Amino acid sequence: MAQNKPAVIVDDIVRVLETLRERRPLVHCMTNEVVKDITANILLAIGASPAMVEHAEEAAEFAAIADALLINVGTLDTTQMEAMRAAIASATLAEKPWVLDPVAIGAISLRTRFSREILAQRPALIRGNASEIIALAGRAGKGRGADSGDSAEHALDAAAQLVAQTGNAVLVTGPVDYALDAARTLACANGHPLLTRVTGVGCAQGALAAACVAVAPDKIHGAAAAAVFMAIAGELAAARAPRPGSFRTALIDELDRLDADTIRKFAKLETVKQNA
Amino acid sequence: MAQNKPAVIVDDIVRVLETLRERRPLVHCMTNEVVKDITANILLAIGASPAMVEHAEEAAEFAAIADALLINVGTLDTTQMEAMRAAIASATLAEKPWVLDPVAIGAISLRTRFSREILAQRPALIRGNASEIIALAGRAGKGRGADSGDSAEHALDAAAQLVAQTGNAVLVTGPVDYALDAARTLACANGHPLLTRVTGVGCAQGALAAACVAVAPDKIHGAAAAAVFMAIAGELAAARAPRPGSFRTALIDELDRLDADTIRKFAKLETVKQNA
Amino acid sequence: MAQNKPAVIVDDIVRVLETLRERRPLVHCMTNEVVKDITANILLAIGASPAMVEHAEEAAEFAAIADALLINVGTLDTTQMEAMRAAIASATLAEKPWVLDPVAIGAISLRTRFSREILAQRPALIRGNASEIIALAGRAGKGRGADSGDSAEHALDAAAQLVAQTGNAVLVTGPVDYALDAARTLACANGHPLLTRVTGVGCAQGALAAACVAVAPDKIHGAAAAAVFMAIAGELAAARAPRPGSFRTALIDELDRLDADTIRKFAKLETVKQNA
Repeated sequence: MAQNKPAVIVDDIVRVLETLRERRPLVHCMTNEVVKDITANILLAIGASPAMVEHAEEAAEFAAIADALLINVGTLDTTQMEAMRAAIASATLAEKPWVLDPVAIGAISLRTRFSREILAQRPALIRGNASEIIALAGRAGKGRGADSGDSAEHALDAAAQLVAQTGNAVLVTGPVDYALDAARTLACANGHPLLTRVTGVGCAQGALAAACVAVAPDKIHGAAAAAVFMAIAGELAAARAPRPGSFRTALIDELDRLDADTIRKFAKLETVKQNA
Repeated sequence: MAQNKPAVIVDDIVRVLETLRERRPLVHCMTNEVVKDITANILLAIGASPAMVEHAEEAAEFAAIADALLINVGTLDTTQMEAMRAAIASATLAEKPWVLDPVAIGAISLRTRFSREILAQRPALIRGNASEIIALAGRAGKGRGADSGDSAEHALDAAAQLVAQTGNAVLVTGPVDYALDAARTLACANGHPLLTRVTGVGCAQGALAAACVAVAPDKIHGAAAAAVFMAIAGELAAARAPRPGSFRTALIDELDRLDADTIRKFAKLETVKQNA
Repeated sequence: MAQNKPAVIVDDIVRVLETLRERRPLVHCMTNEVVKDITANILLAIGASPAMVEHAEEAAEFAAIADALLINVGTLDTTQMEAMRAAIASATLAEKPWVLDPVAIGAISLRTRFSREILAQRPALIRGNASEIIALAGRAGKGRGADSGDSAEHALDAAAQLVAQTGNAVLVTGPVDYALDAARTLACANGHPLLTRVTGVGCAQGALAAACVAVAPDKIHGAAAAAVFMAIAGELAAARAPRPGSFRTALIDELDRLDADTIRKFAKLETVKQNA
């Protein structure tokens, strides 16, 4: 287990932001009914282009056009599951990355079965809190609803198993966020508790991760970038808006304002483990 | 008809807030497509935990896990009606309270028929404006869309009939809100017209009422608490944000800031009638 | 091509605002899942009354009661298409105007076919960006997702063709907005780039146009009014809220604050062409 040169990783994250704003990736979001507004606004604020396309026929067609696809199982229904399967197949054929956000699985059977089913299609990135990652890996956890009952550290074993299954990356979110692939584990210690007091921030981070993965040189840097962007913007927003209504507004403003200097100044990002 | 000792009721409302923040009830919201974001954010602001679960299989499973269930018929479709029936049956079996919000019934046939059908499953609380309460009781009214054409006072007879049918409580919202059960009628004279200029505030109050009923010693105090919390937060928000965009943000901030002292200072709550 | 007397048109727009606030038209919105919240809040801010009714049975019933109907194809599904057909038939029978917003057609087949199908029912107004107007007229364009790749000027020929097909009006939105009918073309040069950085503003403008058409003496003035209201409110909001989160809030506040004097002071509206 070697210590990293932190500046190198932070530079990678800065480049993800710059590339994202230059290329404005089109992110095809198939997400739950609660968070579509904040998801689209957070993508627009960071500089990406959101599109919510849900009908099976349209979704398959659009997944091939878009730069990345987000699959969030938060308010799954039978029709949406079919459309998601078609979109994943289309994205895979077009070699576009897709991100799986297994919201609140574990406590609820249908979404748990579905998330495990599509896991076999090897998402470029899985984003979840500790409980969701543990449940997706088929282990017992404490999740009830969208809030995690398990610590992120306890989920790292489960995450490593998912990395082995998909050959790709996992982002475990919590007080400290962890991004891992087969080669290493990065930890981001930025963030603020108010990020959990606004609905949809976690789900929007999944969409942000899809935007980052679309432009990042490798998946783990996309995952880490999404963690760092949201966490630093959350810290800056909380400093001037300590209540959840105004914090939501400030968070979007801070994502828009985010730049290389701010990331270099505030990022608490380190390599905690060389996995290879 | 006896006069109440107001401090006693206000103390009950204060205890509902304190218990709610301690126990963080998980509120299963089956609600309309317009208001999911503000509903979840208002539940988070007051200290509850929202979950929107809509698929029939998931909804039945989740209703047994959650602490309360909200049924809001604002954008009903055939699939959702089936899921709602399953969730109500599951909540009833698990002895969890459910709240009925019969949005805009009367003017529109399908939701009127459906609301009357599920009324037979005896919701712990019904929340509606005057027109909706009158329509649910099967009387003629003036409602057109989500705005009420009838005064709350005129709806009190209809509300008393619904109390008799369900054996539970009713919250009639308007310039003055009324909470009633078989024993008494409480009136809350707090509030502000801006509360009607932001979409979803009324629907979010139904969810807030579900959170309160989940932790209150009896249903009428849960209903009155939801009325008082929203109305006082609305008054405080309007004092510093007199336009609807910023008022929406301030309302969520004020629900987060709400505490025992603020409730004791501002609550205009009285028992207007001993029904027993 | 004659020059207009601009004050005359601006006076027409002012009267639309005054009539709208007096009559509070009930706007039946059948729109996409991303924008329902901002659409309803923008209608409430300007003084209209929103209602989102989607079930086929309810939609047909409600379209006859409401003052105008909005059809936005942004997240079309099979059930919604059927409900939209029923609502359009009902609105037509009741002689209520309906507005078509062909969001992101061109790039995606299903919504393109559906929009062309319902075009035969002659919407009172079509609102779209350049790419959408070009695609609806069956011409080749550059659209990808909801953002336009074509300039509004290039779309004016396509818009004129749609005016000929429907016998009604078209609003082409962009850096300059154009409202046309068989008799003339009006241009509104107000606006601000931040209007494109908040999700749903364009879609909400379609709803605003439905509210305006419901109360305007003719359709082109309704279209121009919707363009002017949103564009001036956007300029004023951007002057005090230069980031997209707070801009969204300020935009709603400014629509609420908008009055005759503000419109007279800021409107950049002119007749660019007499079509007849």
